Amino acid sequence: MTRLRNDTFLRALLREPTDYTPVWLMRQAGRYLPEYCETRRRAGSFLDLCKNPDLACEVTLQPLARYKLDAAILFSDILTVPDAMGLGLYFAEGEGPRFERPLRDEWEIRNLACPDPHAELQYVMDAVSVIRRALDNSVPLIGFSGSPWTLACYMVEGASSSDYRRIKTLAYSRPDLLHHILEVTARAVTAYLNAQIESGAQAVMVFDSWGGVLSEAAYHEFSLPYMQQVVSGLIKEREGRRVPNIVFTKGGGLWLESIAAIGADAVGLDWTMDIGRARALVGDRVAIQGNLDPSILFGDNEIIAAEARRVLDQFGPNPGHVFNLGHGISQFTSPDAVSVLIDTVHSHGRAIRSLA
Amino acid sequence: MTRLRNDTFLRALLREPTDYTPVWLMRQAGRYLPEYCETRRRAGSFLDLCKNPDLACEVTLQPLARYKLDAAILFSDILTVPDAMGLGLYFAEGEGPRFERPLRDEWEIRNLACPDPHAELQYVMDAVSVIRRALDNSVPLIGFSGSPWTLACYMVEGASSSDYRRIKTLAYSRPDLLHHILEVTARAVTAYLNAQIESGAQAVMVFDSWGGVLSEAAYHEFSLPYMQQVVSGLIKEREGRRVPNIVFTKGGGLWLESIAAIGADAVGLDWTMDIGRARALVGDRVAIQGNLDPSILFGDNEIIAAEARRVLDQFGPNPGHVFNLGHGISQFTSPDAVSVLIDTVHSHGRAIRSLA
Repeated sequence: MTRLRNDTFLRALLREPTDYTPVWLMRQAGRYLPEYCETRRRAGSFLDLCKNPDLACEVTLQPLARYKLDAAILFSDILTVPDAMGLGLYFAEGEGPRFERPLRDEWEIRNLACPDPHAELQYVMDAVSVIRRALDNSVPLIGFSGSPWTLACYMVEGASSSDYRRIKTLAYSRPDLLHHILEVTARAVTAYLNAQIESGAQAVMVFDSWGGVLSEAAYHEFSLPYMQQVVSGLIKEREGRRVPNIVFTKGGGLWLESIAAIGADAVGLDWTMDIGRARALVGDRVAIQGNLDPSILFGDNEIIAAEARRVLDQFGPNPGHVFNLGHGISQFTSPDAVSVLIDTVHSHGRAIRSLA
Repeated sequence: MTRLRNDTFLRALLREPTDYTPVWLMRQAGRYLPEYCETRRRAGSFLDLCKNPDLACEVTLQPLARYKLDAAILFSDILTVPDAMGLGLYFAEGEGPRFERPLRDEWEIRNLACPDPHAELQYVMDAVSVIRRALDNSVPLIGFSGSPWTLACYMVEGASSSDYRRIKTLAYSRPDLLHHILEVTARAVTAYLNAQIESGAQAVMVFDSWGGVLSEAAYHEFSLPYMQQVVSGLIKEREGRRVPNIVFTKGGGLWLESIAAIGADAVGLDWTMDIGRARALVGDRVAIQGNLDPSILFGDNEIIAAEARRVLDQFGPNPGHVFNLGHGISQFTSPDAVSVLIDTVHSHGRAIRSLA
């Protein structure tokens, strides 16, 4: 078994006791850091940065140099899989991701095929290997992908959407075609995450950014079963160690109990639900990752610290909590606010355990 | 007591038995109707239409001429109150609402004053009177306002926002100033809704469109108490009849039990929560209004009918259900899809009661 100098994050995901609450931040390598902006300028576009393993490694490590984070996360995009399927991912300046060739016709949907992770997606595997070497067993590396439903949203809409009109029209007029997209995508995501694990990822996370736009019934038909399919197909052990997995549906608080039942090790939680209530609902069946509103980092230092303590107190000293934001960190965050947060989580996490 | 030819909607809000489930649709007078677009062209801008009582009456009645709806809703905007406070509401073409003079400085916040509903907002009261006369006691007329939190979001951000950065910065650095805005706005909303009731509105609804962007703790600090303040200050009886009120927080499903406890007659529900589960949580303490995903109206007729029946079946034949969408109807909806929906709700609502 590879000896990690800090495996607190992995142990918390497996609900094992830890000395403190581990913490990492979604999008921790990002635009709020001046050094990230500098590397990004050198790389060219966002996609150029994703596709260059050495520069992807550089930005992955930047937040770890500043803060005592308990995990690194691969620098990449959630939409690499549909890009590898041939849809043509690009980023228009100042806008979100877009696809040149969104799925519009039945024949395009029928022709959809799983990409080979070691062909079109080899640049991701190379980045994973380079980052693992650079981390040198300091903290674990997280791999990730978008969820089948979230990828399907972008693949059908061609971009982010305010009303998801195209994909919901498909869901409520040709559910058979939507299920076909989701089935192929679930197989592709599974193969992609397993290739990341084989390349060195020590935990994996599935981001269901858009599951929360569905009705309860539609979520349980179009999103959750395909995340379950992915989770059940994941490699569970590697290098003599369990590889934990995390599923995160933004806006999924109402469905927490069914999400906690799909077999994942941990569930991500956004900030709309008290994490203490969440823990009462799922008990120790899964670990919970979350859940500070990232906007709290725009506030005063005393309020940031108080709100971070509130999240820790709500969860309590039980095993199975990974501290995180409830969504990616904003580009407008001050790097100093992040210091306050990380220091508070570590010190207060120790304090509540010593009192317990 | 004024004799209404169809008071099914009002009785359902008060959890009295009805022969069928009453139905109306949020934004039922809107761009999906060609006759609305025609009146809107004649009026000029959206705000010109809101401010002309005769044209506002014309568009209010249009959906009632097409469909057997059980209520009419005043044609207006949720942001009339801050406009009357002097912030300068306008609509940039193809964009959402904006304010010319958003609240940016402490002195602007300190100077905020309640508008007199019979001065700056008299055009709304005139529209209510004209519509009531035109309805001629056929179905009840609903008045409405934005919630204090939702109005404060627009007042501070100056427009809709993707991250609510300005107002959350205020919440987490100067909560005292935010509470001042909310307190003044709650008084203004109460006076405004009471003036609508005195002008003829037979039920009122408070739209908390943005409550769902808050954490559980922040919702219970910045949104819900101010809705409670509004609800407790509302006129409860007029023309010898109870005037029911409805509160609706989009994305508030996680907080349903505390919302149901503020003293409102009915709670609006978006489509992310099974309405049967919602009813099990609140029992018969409040009526529930909702909750079909408006995107289902983009689907096939058979699926629209099946999904409408599903909502009715989930709630069951108990009193206290007003059928509605979980959000405003989309401009891209086919008017024929709405016919399928309304007919299904009426026929299936009768059927489940005859079986019960």
